[in-house]
Amino acid sequence: MPVDDIADALPLVDHHCHGLFPADLDDARLADSLSEAFAPAPPGTSHWDKPVALSVRRWCAPVLDLPPLCPPAEYAERRRALGAAEVNRRFLAATGIGTYIVDSGNRPEELCSVTEVGAIASAPAREIVRMESVAEGVARGGVSAAGYAQAFEAAVRSAVGDENVVGLKSILAYRATLRIDYGNPAPAEVEAAAGRWLAEIEQTGNVRLVDQTLERHLIWAGADIARERGFPIQFHIGMGDPDIELHRVDPSHLTPWVKEVESWGFPITLLHCYPFHREAGLMAENFPQVYCDVGFALNWVGPSYQRIMDEALELVPFTKQLFSTDAFGLAELYFLGAKRFRTALTRALGKWIDDDECSVTEAERIATLIGVENARRIYRL
Amino acid sequence: MPVDDIADALPLVDHHCHGLFPADLDDARLADSLSEAFAPAPPGTSHWDKPVALSVRRWCAPVLDLPPLCPPAEYAERRRALGAAEVNRRFLAATGIGTYIVDSGNRPEELCSVTEVGAIASAPAREIVRMESVAEGVARGGVSAAGYAQAFEAAVRSAVGDENVVGLKSILAYRATLRIDYGNPAPAEVEAAAGRWLAEIEQTGNVRLVDQTLERHLIWAGADIARERGFPIQFHIGMGDPDIELHRVDPSHLTPWVKEVESWGFPITLLHCYPFHREAGLMAENFPQVYCDVGFALNWVGPSYQRIMDEALELVPFTKQLFSTDAFGLAELYFLGAKRFRTALTRALGKWIDDDECSVTEAERIATLIGVENARRIYRL
Amino acid sequence: MPVDDIADALPLVDHHCHGLFPADLDDARLADSLSEAFAPAPPGTSHWDKPVALSVRRWCAPVLDLPPLCPPAEYAERRRALGAAEVNRRFLAATGIGTYIVDSGNRPEELCSVTEVGAIASAPAREIVRMESVAEGVARGGVSAAGYAQAFEAAVRSAVGDENVVGLKSILAYRATLRIDYGNPAPAEVEAAAGRWLAEIEQTGNVRLVDQTLERHLIWAGADIARERGFPIQFHIGMGDPDIELHRVDPSHLTPWVKEVESWGFPITLLHCYPFHREAGLMAENFPQVYCDVGFALNWVGPSYQRIMDEALELVPFTKQLFSTDAFGLAELYFLGAKRFRTALTRALGKWIDDDECSVTEAERIATLIGVENARRIYRL
Repeated sequence: MPVDDIADALPLVDHHCHGLFPADLDDARLADSLSEAFAPAPPGTSHWDKPVALSVRRWCAPVLDLPPLCPPAEYAERRRALGAAEVNRRFLAATGIGTYIVDSGNRPEELCSVTEVGAIASAPAREIVRMESVAEGVARGGVSAAGYAQAFEAAVRSAVGDENVVGLKSILAYRATLRIDYGNPAPAEVEAAAGRWLAEIEQTGNVRLVDQTLERHLIWAGADIARERGFPIQFHIGMGDPDIELHRVDPSHLTPWVKEVESWGFPITLLHCYPFHREAGLMAENFPQVYCDVGFALNWVGPSYQRIMDEALELVPFTKQLFSTDAFGLAELYFLGAKRFRTALTRALGKWIDDDECSVTEAERIATLIGVENARRIYRL
Repeated sequence: MPVDDIADALPLVDHHCHGLFPADLDDARLADSLSEAFAPAPPGTSHWDKPVALSVRRWCAPVLDLPPLCPPAEYAERRRALGAAEVNRRFLAATGIGTYIVDSGNRPEELCSVTEVGAIASAPAREIVRMESVAEGVARGGVSAAGYAQAFEAAVRSAVGDENVVGLKSILAYRATLRIDYGNPAPAEVEAAAGRWLAEIEQTGNVRLVDQTLERHLIWAGADIARERGFPIQFHIGMGDPDIELHRVDPSHLTPWVKEVESWGFPITLLHCYPFHREAGLMAENFPQVYCDVGFALNWVGPSYQRIMDEALELVPFTKQLFSTDAFGLAELYFLGAKRFRTALTRALGKWIDDDECSVTEAERIATLIGVENARRIYRL
Repeated sequence: MPVDDIADALPLVDHHCHGLFPADLDDARLADSLSEAFAPAPPGTSHWDKPVALSVRRWCAPVLDLPPLCPPAEYAERRRALGAAEVNRRFLAATGIGTYIVDSGNRPEELCSVTEVGAIASAPAREIVRMESVAEGVARGGVSAAGYAQAFEAAVRSAVGDENVVGLKSILAYRATLRIDYGNPAPAEVEAAAGRWLAEIEQTGNVRLVDQTLERHLIWAGADIARERGFPIQFHIGMGDPDIELHRVDPSHLTPWVKEVESWGFPITLLHCYPFHREAGLMAENFPQVYCDVGFALNWVGPSYQRIMDEALELVPFTKQLFSTDAFGLAELYFLGAKRFRTALTRALGKWIDDDECSVTEAERIATLIGVENARRIYRL
C-alpha cells in the first residue's frame, strides 16, 4: 500500500458532528454559516474572506460541478439550483465516513434529525445527548425548584434509554466556563439555584442554563449515568463562538473533576481543543479515561490544517485521539472535515515514515486507531 | 507575476511603530536597544547573542556597506561613522513602507517626532495617541482629583483634534493588566482613584498610571471618542518588556469589554499578540470589530519568523489581519520588520498555491488586504 | 565541517536528569515507565501505544541488538536477558553526554545514586538538591513547628556543603502551583504552617509538602543559599504527571518572584516548559538571570521533536537555553534525549544556514552555547 493511501480508505467514525440544514440557504445565511460571529461581516468585507471559506470554494465547488475557487455568489446560486437535498447527498457520499455520532441538542429546529443524517449518508448515525438542552427542556416543560434535580436526571435517563444513544455531552465551557469549583452541589444548593433560574425564566422568557451550581449538578448527574452505561461524556473545549472566553476553557481546568471521577471508568472526550490541543494531549497522557480530537479546527483553519494535526500528534497516545468534523448545518463541512483529517494524518505519518521513525505497518495501525478504532471501542459501536 | 513577488511591491501600511533614535548610539546603548530586558546581559554574554540581533547582523549590515554577519563592534562603529541621519534614511528608504502610523507617546524624549519619521521616510506618517501618556501628562500638568476625569477626556479630545491623528492606543496590558473587571467606573470612583494617584505622585514624584479604576475610565473614555471619530483603539497584547506577566495579557481577557462596545462600531486592534496570536485570531473571527497583527514577534524571533506568520494565518479572516513592525528607535527594525513580513506572507501564500489551495490572484488579493487595504480601511487613510 | 555535524560531537551537559533503574524491570513496570499516568493503560490498549514508546522501539532497540520497531514483549525480554547493568552501560555510552547533573531527590529508593550515574556513564555526575525532599526529610526526622524553618535551612545548607552539589531545585509547580502569592512569609506564619503540616503527618503518615506558606518559605530560603553560593535554582515548569494542572504552571506566574530576586544574581532555570516554552523564552529575554530548556518534551513527543526545538529557538537568547534529557529511570531516555537534542538543534540551525540566515561558524557557536557552555557557565563546572 503506498504511503499516501494510509488514511484514504478508512471508514471514519465522526464522533462529533451536528445535523444538516435541510433547506436551501439564501446568500446571507450561507455566508453567516461560514462564520462563528453572531454578526455580519463589517462593511466592505464578507464572511467568505477567510480560510475555511477559501477552502470551501476550492474543494467543495467541484463537488457541485463548479470550477475551483468560483466566486461566492455563483457558489450560492448553484447550491440553490441543485437543492439542499442533492447538495447534502453529494457531500455526504463523498466523505467516506462510516459512522456519524450526532449531537442532537444544538439548534435542532434548524437542522435535520439524527435519523435523517443517517438516511442522507446511507450510513449509521448514532446520537449524543446534550445535557444542557435536556435541562432547558425540563425547565421549559414546567417543573418546581424542588423537583428540578430529579426531573433533570429522569429526563437524561429517559433520553439515553433510546439504544441509538451512545454518549452524553456538556457545553459547560460555554456556560459556567471550565474555571469553576467542581464539587458536587448538595440537593439544597441545587434546589435554590433551580429556584433562581426558574424565576428568571418566568421574568425574562429566556431559557438558557448558565448557573454554575446547576452546571455542577449536571456534570455529576451525567457522570452517574455515564458510569452506569459505560459510555463517554463529551466536553466542549477551546475555540467556539463569541460566548467563549478562551482563558476560561483550557481543558486543564477540568483536572480536579477528571481525578474525582477517574475510578468511575467512563471515557471523557475533549472536543476541538484548539488552541489548547497540547494541554489536551497531556491530559490524555496523564489520565486513562481522557480522549481528545482537533475537529472543528481542522476545518476552520482552511489551508493551515496540517500544523494542527502535527501538533495534535505530539503527545497524545495513539489510543486516545479521535476523529471529528464538528460539521454543523453545511454539508460541505462533513466533506471538508473528513478530507482534511485524511490528508493531514496521511502526511503526518508519511513524514514519520520518511524520517525513518515509523514503518508503514505501524502507521496504518495508528491511522486506524485514531480514525476508527478508538471511537468504536469507547462508544461501543 | 511570479509567486515570489506576491508581497514584494506592496506599499505597506505599518499600523504600529514608534519614532527613530535621532542621535548616534554608543556600543552599550545599541546593544541595549536589541533587548527587552531592563538590565545588561549577564557577565560573559551580550545582548547581541539572540535571534533578532543575528538577523540585524545578517540583513542590516549590508545596508550599511558591511559584510553579512559582521561583528557587533564593527557594526556599531560603522553605524556611528555613517551618522544616525544617514543610517535612518538608508533603512527607511529600503522598507518600501507606504504609510507609517506612529505611536507618539512612548519615551518621546528619546525619539524623533511623527513628522520627522515622515520626513526621513519621504512617506506619510500619521499619529496614534497613547492614552496613558495623555493621562500622565494631565497629572503632571496639575489637576484636582475632582477635575481629573474631565481634564483627561478634554486632553484626549484635544490631541485627536489634530487631523493627522488616526487612532488611540492603550497599554492597559502593562499597567492594570487585562485580567480585570471591565465595568465603566462611576465618577465618584474615578475621583477617588485620581485622588489616591495624585497624592502618590505628590509623595514619590513617580507619574505612572497603573490604577485599575483609572485604566477602566481611560478605555471607556477612549471608546467614547473612538466611537465619535470612527477610528480604532489599539491594545498592547502579549509579549513585551519585564513589566508584562504573560498570563495576565491573553487577549481573551478583553472579551467582556469587546462585547460591551461591539455595537459602538469602532475597530479594536490587538497588537503583537505572541504567544497568544491564536487566541487573537479567534477573537478576530468572533467579533466584527476586532483586528490583529503579529508585528514585534516577526522581528524579535529572527530566523524563526515564518512559523509565526503561518500560525497567524490559521484562523483570522483575511480582512482582519494587519501589518506592523513595532519598530522602536532603531531604523533597522523598520527595515527588518517589513522584510520579514513580505517574505513570510509571500512564502505562506506561495505554499497555499503550491498545495493547490489558492490561486495567484486570490493570494495577491489576500496579501494586499493584510499588508495595505485593511489598515487603509479602518484607519481611513 | 559538514552542517549535519554541528551538534554531533558536543560533550553535552545534561543539566537535568535523574538516576537510573539499577534492577531489571518486568513487562508491566517497563510499560509503566513509558507513561506519566499513575494508572495502567485502559483495557485493550498499552502504554507502548504512544510517541515516546514508538521512538524507544525504533531507536533504542538496535542498541540492544534488536531490529528497529521490534514488538514490546521482545524488547522487554531482551532488556532482561542483557541485564540492567549492561543495558544502562550501553545506552549511557551511546549518549555522548559529557556531564550529568542529577536531581537526587525524586524516588531515590528506586534509582541509582548520583555517583553510580557517573560510574555507569564514565563521566562526571554532579548533584542537584531537591528542596521539597529535604523539607520532607526534616519533617520525617522529627522536628518541632518552632524549629522547622531553621532545621530546613540547616539541612539544605548541609546538603549543599557537599562540593559535588551544583544547584537547588523546587517542584513548587507540583505542590502549591505557580499561581500563588510570592511574599516571603514571616517566621510566625512558617511556624504555624509547619505546625499544621506536622500534625497532619502525625495523623495520616503522609509526608508530602504542599502547603503554600511552607513552599514560599522554601523558595525564599533556597534563594538565600543560591545567592551565597552563586548557583542556580531549577523550577519544574509545564508538563508533568497527573498532579500538574497546566493552567497553574505557566512560568509567567513566577514573574513577581523573579523580579524580587533579580538583583540577587543567582540563575533561575525553567525546566521542560512545554507547552509554555514560548512564555519561558520571553522570560529568558526579559530577565538576565532566567534560563530554560525543553528537555522531557523532546523525548516525550517522539517523532515530533523537531517542532519543539524550533519553537524553543524563537525567542530565547542563545546564552540562555540549556540541554536536558529529564531522563528518569530508563537508560533509553538519556540516549534518546541526547539524540533528539543533537538532531533537532542540528536541523534547526542547518535550516538557518540553508535560508542564508546564519553561517556555519555562528551555528557552531550557538550549538556549543546551548548544548555545553551555558550550563558550564551557570553551574560553574
